[in-house]
Amino acid sequence: MAALNGGTHSKAVLVSAEGHILAETDGPCTNHWLVGVDNCINGINDMVQRAKIKAGLDPDTPVCSLGMSLSGGEQKAAIQKLIDDMRERYPKLSQSYFITTDAIGAMATASDYGGIVVISGTGSNCKLVNPDGTQVGCGGWGHMMGDEGSAYWISHLAIKTFFDARDNLVTSPHDINYVKKAMEEYFQVSDLMGMLPHLYRIFQKSHFAGFCRKLAEGGSAGDALCQHVFTEAGKALARHIVAVLPKVHQDLFSGELGLPVLCVGSVWRSWELMKSGFAQVLSEAQAHGYSHFQKYSLLTLRQSSALGGAKMGAKNAGASLPLDYSANVNVFFSHTFNQ
Amino acid sequence: MAALNGGTHSKAVLVSAEGHILAETDGPCTNHWLVGVDNCINGINDMVQRAKIKAGLDPDTPVCSLGMSLSGGEQKAAIQKLIDDMRERYPKLSQSYFITTDAIGAMATASDYGGIVVISGTGSNCKLVNPDGTQVGCGGWGHMMGDEGSAYWISHLAIKTFFDARDNLVTSPHDINYVKKAMEEYFQVSDLMGMLPHLYRIFQKSHFAGFCRKLAEGGSAGDALCQHVFTEAGKALARHIVAVLPKVHQDLFSGELGLPVLCVGSVWRSWELMKSGFAQVLSEAQAHGYSHFQKYSLLTLRQSSALGGAKMGAKNAGASLPLDYSANVNVFFSHTFNQ
Repeated sequence: MAALNGGTHSKAVLVSAEGHILAETDGPCTNHWLVGVDNCINGINDMVQRAKIKAGLDPDTPVCSLGMSLSGGEQKAAIQKLIDDMRERYPKLSQSYFITTDAIGAMATASDYGGIVVISGTGSNCKLVNPDGTQVGCGGWGHMMGDEGSAYWISHLAIKTFFDARDNLVTSPHDINYVKKAMEEYFQVSDLMGMLPHLYRIFQKSHFAGFCRKLAEGGSAGDALCQHVFTEAGKALARHIVAVLPKVHQDLFSGELGLPVLCVGSVWRSWELMKSGFAQVLSEAQAHGYSHFQKYSLLTLRQSSALGGAKMGAKNAGASLPLDYSANVNVFFSHTFNQ
Repeated sequence: MAALNGGTHSKAVLVSAEGHILAETDGPCTNHWLVGVDNCINGINDMVQRAKIKAGLDPDTPVCSLGMSLSGGEQKAAIQKLIDDMRERYPKLSQSYFITTDAIGAMATASDYGGIVVISGTGSNCKLVNPDGTQVGCGGWGHMMGDEGSAYWISHLAIKTFFDARDNLVTSPHDINYVKKAMEEYFQVSDLMGMLPHLYRIFQKSHFAGFCRKLAEGGSAGDALCQHVFTEAGKALARHIVAVLPKVHQDLFSGELGLPVLCVGSVWRSWELMKSGFAQVLSEAQAHGYSHFQKYSLLTLRQSSALGGAKMGAKNAGASLPLDYSANVNVFFSHTFNQ
């Protein structure tokens, strides 16, 4: 059993002791930093109870373990409070609880050997997991202090480029008309002033980040500014990898795939638009002193990363959940550097 | 009569028909974008009524005109709603109402000939007023889309530099220890995680921006990173001036002071720390094609910019309020470019 949460959507999967998925359910954002502890707990309980019913189980019988991989599941005190509150308010939910981050849940779905996870959905985050289990993070501080390369950040970069061009503060590298029209349409505004409520009074990160889809459409249709913001996102995400590169264990470089990079989140669907910026930053880093870094591969999950959360929750409860890792991932890009 | 508002504090001045200040009162932030329309209106009414009492006037007798220069007083529909609500809820407040921006109120306090106003307090904003009264703005979009060079922005830049250094995402140009300690002390936190509530759940722009004072202290005491963020702020504020330069009327360059730049807001108290960055950006712009831009002077107000708001409110009500402009301003820096 596991619940997974992103900045916009959440997912629960109910897993049998043999590792089979019995049921899956969806729910709204359950990041407690964004929606508060109450909404987070209610959302998780609701998803899990629906999953029990969907699988034909008694909703009043607690599952053995609930492993949650939550974006925002990083701070120990906050996590303990979430678990305590869940135990108290929903005693029929689960016998044991375990919370980890969305990044670690994703990694546990893909491999038990480690790698680098780069999340880019509504927000962004990067986590290196070494073969010995040690972790090194970069980013994941939310839209006020990071989220570089995320859907929020891409949307913001495009809109900021438009604002700055209008103000004559910074010249846009490309024509702004597509972004202007797309912004007016998506946010239903007719001028810059109209954007202010969307930035402040009625600001919703997931809605703001949703504008990224329009930019992806523009990029695919050939708009140069849309392509530019995705190239910048590719660079930003690659910089997160470069940030943790000095801490990567030698063994992670030497597998068949080279350095495995697990790519999680909806922004990766626009990989073709990000590719040039991403590859450029990694090539520069490799050329400047990582001679043992000869190859990297980008992987996506074919299963929900809630599965890894379930595995970790089970392990925490003293059970082991068998997962077929090779069936869970897909390699979508590999690059070997020139010698 | 006038009320003036900044992102953190507000001020009301009660002025006689002859232009004498009868009373002054203070209040909290009245930016309706930040505190909402209700708090904004209540705050203004409270300040003005206290000013009447302080001046020995009957609080039940409306003043002739109320001219308000409000940060966030830009959008026509929102302004009209503010005025309508004030009339309805506080009929004894004033006979007539006028709302302009904080920038225009400041300019009206300093001159009736125009110039460039650069505000840098909690937030930032720039407005060119030409001799014919036409206006061109740059910035003023708040912390989500601008505020470059403001106290918020300076605080954010210092903290972001620390986060990025810790993440190994961007190397800090200088030692981060002073900023680290000052941040831990000011926000009462012991690690980066502790900053998250200050960035999200309990975020208050004015409190966040208040950290800038600690950075100014550090800069004055010789800390290189603090000095760096203020140099960057100087550049950012100068870029706002460069942005409106193409629209400056020739006559504004040719006075004795050269281009007059009215500097408003608490960040200008750290002028010495910003000077090199500010001067550099203007020199570069001048060298790249503004041959008629030979000199500029920076001015501060010796009076509250509520005074200019009062003048404009009176004018709107058909009266004229005599102001001695030369007594209202102070030139604190002049620079003539090399020929």
